[in-house]
Amino acid sequence: MTAISPATIRAQFPGVGDWHYLDSAATAQKPQAVIDAVARGYGETYATVHRGVYDRSAAMTRAYEAARERVAAFIGGQPNEIVFTRGATEAINLVAATWGREHIGKGDAIIVSRLDHHSNIVPWQMLAGEVGAEIRVASITDEGRVDLDSVRDLIDDRVKLVALPQVSNVTGAVLDARAVADMAHDVGAKLLLDACQAAPRLPIDVAALGCDFYAISGHKMYGPTGIGALWARADILDAMPPYQGGGSMIDRVSFEEGTTFAPAPTRFEAGTPHIVGAVGLHAACDWIDGIGRDAIHAHEAELVAATREGLAKHNDVTIYGPADSAGIVSFNVRDIHAHDVATILDDAGVAVRAGHHCCQPLMDHWGVPATVRASFAAHSDMADVEALLEGLNKVKRIFG
Amino acid sequence: MTAISPATIRAQFPGVGDWHYLDSAATAQKPQAVIDAVARGYGETYATVHRGVYDRSAAMTRAYEAARERVAAFIGGQPNEIVFTRGATEAINLVAATWGREHIGKGDAIIVSRLDHHSNIVPWQMLAGEVGAEIRVASITDEGRVDLDSVRDLIDDRVKLVALPQVSNVTGAVLDARAVADMAHDVGAKLLLDACQAAPRLPIDVAALGCDFYAISGHKMYGPTGIGALWARADILDAMPPYQGGGSMIDRVSFEEGTTFAPAPTRFEAGTPHIVGAVGLHAACDWIDGIGRDAIHAHEAELVAATREGLAKHNDVTIYGPADSAGIVSFNVRDIHAHDVATILDDAGVAVRAGHHCCQPLMDHWGVPATVRASFAAHSDMADVEALLEGLNKVKRIFG
Repeated sequence: MTAISPATIRAQFPGVGDWHYLDSAATAQKPQAVIDAVARGYGETYATVHRGVYDRSAAMTRAYEAARERVAAFIGGQPNEIVFTRGATEAINLVAATWGREHIGKGDAIIVSRLDHHSNIVPWQMLAGEVGAEIRVASITDEGRVDLDSVRDLIDDRVKLVALPQVSNVTGAVLDARAVADMAHDVGAKLLLDACQAAPRLPIDVAALGCDFYAISGHKMYGPTGIGALWARADILDAMPPYQGGGSMIDRVSFEEGTTFAPAPTRFEAGTPHIVGAVGLHAACDWIDGIGRDAIHAHEAELVAATREGLAKHNDVTIYGPADSAGIVSFNVRDIHAHDVATILDDAGVAVRAGHHCCQPLMDHWGVPATVRASFAAHSDMADVEALLEGLNKVKRIFG
Repeated sequence: MTAISPATIRAQFPGVGDWHYLDSAATAQKPQAVIDAVARGYGETYATVHRGVYDRSAAMTRAYEAARERVAAFIGGQPNEIVFTRGATEAINLVAATWGREHIGKGDAIIVSRLDHHSNIVPWQMLAGEVGAEIRVASITDEGRVDLDSVRDLIDDRVKLVALPQVSNVTGAVLDARAVADMAHDVGAKLLLDACQAAPRLPIDVAALGCDFYAISGHKMYGPTGIGALWARADILDAMPPYQGGGSMIDRVSFEEGTTFAPAPTRFEAGTPHIVGAVGLHAACDWIDGIGRDAIHAHEAELVAATREGLAKHNDVTIYGPADSAGIVSFNVRDIHAHDVATILDDAGVAVRAGHHCCQPLMDHWGVPATVRASFAAHSDMADVEALLEGLNKVKRIFG
């Protein structure tokens, strides 16, 4: 494991500079290698995929499929298990619209938790409403983790799916996915992991995690916007009905004889895909693994520890989430609204997020409208932490 | 109307150079202005939208909404009528999954044509199969246009939707959309236009066209991949149920009280959008209108005329499509397979598409497996046409 050199890394991010960007959990800034891959993708190498007979289109098709192989390798899956989507949100919606509509019916149940992001709640609420299924909500511990005892209490053979965040976008808590996978599989249910926050921060092996569906977003892992991926176990993906209809996802279109569909994963990618997004995501995977996810995780853990230590010196600051958070620290200062805190921090050159973080049920559970969230990346450094803590002193001076 | 200066324009496309790129109907090459906008979007201006309290996120939110305003202006609509999608395929699928499921039921009918792209056929076949509706197929004229008499014969008050291409991606035929809109509205049906090929080639005013839904793809109009837009009349869009569930598209998420949704168009954009794609699409609209769509259309018409004239000298070449095609010429040489023609042309530095062009029902109608298609853009010039025609002589020499 190589220790991180933040200055060297920071210089690779034209969007960072001397800005204290602590909102990487919302979206990651992009290293120059990714920006260059995207610009090259739209420039001298640009062509469509799958359809062109000419050389450059064949080359772009190879690049697109190489991106699929790279994403598969990044999480320990196989290329034929990777569907490119707009992001994790679409990946989850895709599962709901295809596997969900086929396998979840009236009287069935879906387990989510109070820690889930809206993107892993609302699609299941919509599906449950459509088919007459039930949503069961796992509670969380005081530390801000999914309560595994609660999952155990809720699970029975009516449960068809458990949908949880691998890393919480608010508390940074890392799920014991293997334990949940075993519980789910014991009753014949599947496990879907929202891995948006895990992908840029943790080494990943979907086989070891034991999950059935895995959703990631490119823009949160130093990659382009508008691209993400669904991984699904080959046997599950192969059996799933089509998602969107259009070009590329068909085998044969006929009015007279009916339309037949391509095998997975092509069946789930209707229309011209986000070609250059996939190429940029490939570059992002390379960039992350060039640093090393163990190194990034260890680096972010140091920054989390320093932040929590600094915050703990204030007896009027509430910290949400466990000490071993993966790169994320949420907090509030007395009853000062998180937006006010963030606005003052912005004036001090520190970008944090303030709000419900797309986790309103979690905010309701804590009885707060919002939290302040600082989240780290490979380019973050102790100067960012110090600027945050100094900014907090300013907040307290202003609010007296 | 300014006449086009192809040399000046061509120099703006790093992906073109001295390549005879005649596959713009598959995907357009990108002008440097678009590439620069994308690189800047991922660089010093990068941030998330909607959620950040800090300045740069507010600026990116304004840029994202400015892109929506720009796309609306580009087609004569209002910003609140524009939903950003992955492309036209997703735009059409979105209509099928929301408006379609709500308004098309058992015994209802949908009219498409033999000229439609798979993306405007398969979503309707899938919906019809799900709800028990009927697909009615309008025939085409010998010139390769949608036969309006056929539409008139097929339409009655069971028809809820007419879905047609504004410009055919195979024949380049331009639809008399206004006439179809009137027929549709007379029976209470809606008109959806697949405008992928129209957007980069024709001045557009959705109000004058009289359509109800309008679908475009960014990558076909000199913009980024992974971005496109659905325009829908405000009253229709406002009443449509949600599409994908997730962040941003909600008003309030609660397990206890149920979830409520945001107004349109936000309701249809779940999750972090393709922010930089929208910014790049804005730049593409600016670039196109900087040249002028009347000028582009006139320029492409000259190239189409020259191509058709050159092809007509061969008595063994079949040309598909009308003389007033918008930028597209499809043809076959005797019974030489289109792929062979395209491969030989590729060796001569001419990129054309050979295949079914995602229009298998049209190929079946003509009784051919494929056609060769040359399609033009603002950067195309007479040297491209000459290279194509010379390459064709080579094809004929090789095949004797």
